[in-house]
Amino acid sequence: MGRTSDAREKILTSARRLIELNGYSPLGVAEICKAAGVPKGSFYYFFESKEALVRAVIDEEWDEERGGWKAILDGDGTPLERLRRLFEATAAEQRAGQQSCGTVSGCLFGNLTLELSNRTEPVRARLQEIFDAQVAMVRAVVEEARERGEVTVADGDAAARAVVAQIEGQVLFAKLYNDTGLLDTMWANCLALLGASPPARADAA
Amino acid sequence: MGRTSDAREKILTSARRLIELNGYSPLGVAEICKAAGVPKGSFYYFFESKEALVRAVIDEEWDEERGGWKAILDGDGTPLERLRRLFEATAAEQRAGQQSCGTVSGCLFGNLTLELSNRTEPVRARLQEIFDAQVAMVRAVVEEARERGEVTVADGDAAARAVVAQIEGQVLFAKLYNDTGLLDTMWANCLALLGASPPARADAA
Repeated sequence: MGRTSDAREKILTSARRLIELNGYSPLGVAEICKAAGVPKGSFYYFFESKEALVRAVIDEEWDEERGGWKAILDGDGTPLERLRRLFEATAAEQRAGQQSCGTVSGCLFGNLTLELSNRTEPVRARLQEIFDAQVAMVRAVVEEARERGEVTVADGDAAARAVVAQIEGQVLFAKLYNDTGLLDTMWANCLALLGASPPARADAA
Repeated sequence: MGRTSDAREKILTSARRLIELNGYSPLGVAEICKAAGVPKGSFYYFFESKEALVRAVIDEEWDEERGGWKAILDGDGTPLERLRRLFEATAAEQRAGQQSCGTVSGCLFGNLTLELSNRTEPVRARLQEIFDAQVAMVRAVVEEARERGEVTVADGDAAARAVVAQIEGQVLFAKLYNDTGLLDTMWANCLALLGASPPARADAA
């Protein structure tokens, strides 16, 4: 066991990978520590329970993902260009995961929502915060696009939620069919949901 | 233990309810048999494994659900009226589940896709068949609506998949927030995805 900070990070990394592969329930502390290369005793030094671990995994994943979303959505370009880049980044992440694991592992937050939200209220509450934050970030860009007359939506919040729901639904299919090609339709669907111009009519964007 | 056919049905019903509540992984044979009120030994008389059981639960659920979908989509009314009824039935089923369990349990097929598809290939294959069938049923109605000039979609299959993905994504949110009100936006989103008239403009339908 190296420095304690290394051990905690190794446990989180291994747990993240195992949760991606098999979900939360089958995960065992012994298996995590073996994969992380740390003594089993060190687990409870850092995490009081498996639930505390999964919450730390969720927090770390969202810290990283939120940074990526922020960089894209606060970046250069028109609102729709930035939103499009977010969809491309989402698809690229799923393709990278497929290349490293052999299968599409899907969205960690979506996976844990369906597996855990009815079983542990703290996990449900944290996942709600994360999806609320995602919807708020998409909504801000949608409102910007609306001010520019590029989209026509009656309710910015509902529209942003529909966009995030479409991502979750299509990522579910990409996982089921182990086929990231299914994500290629996400952007056209997003434009349709927002009442924006279809991609073929770039002149109207 | 009653007639053997009763015992099998009781096991399936209890397993279905437990999977809805907690997912597949935490499910134990002893717990299922206790909930079903059948001796533990009878489980292996009917099912060779927990995986065989979940496959039987999936099959039974789809037999029932497919019947409901067929009755609606082959029923009376314009294609869009029938599709709308399918959305209403989906929301009504989630509300009924919430009333009986206290929480929205979501879509059994979506739940098991995210929990199990990367772990057991036979379950993945069966869930693929079911979602393929759902997409095909929606597609047939979308094509009918297209022939009547009521929707404008370039690719009927991709459009039908987007519609089913939107349902899965919104049902995921309904489960996460334990709020079936979130399903109220599904129909407007479906119309947008199909390039149909928004509900407020019924005159153009």
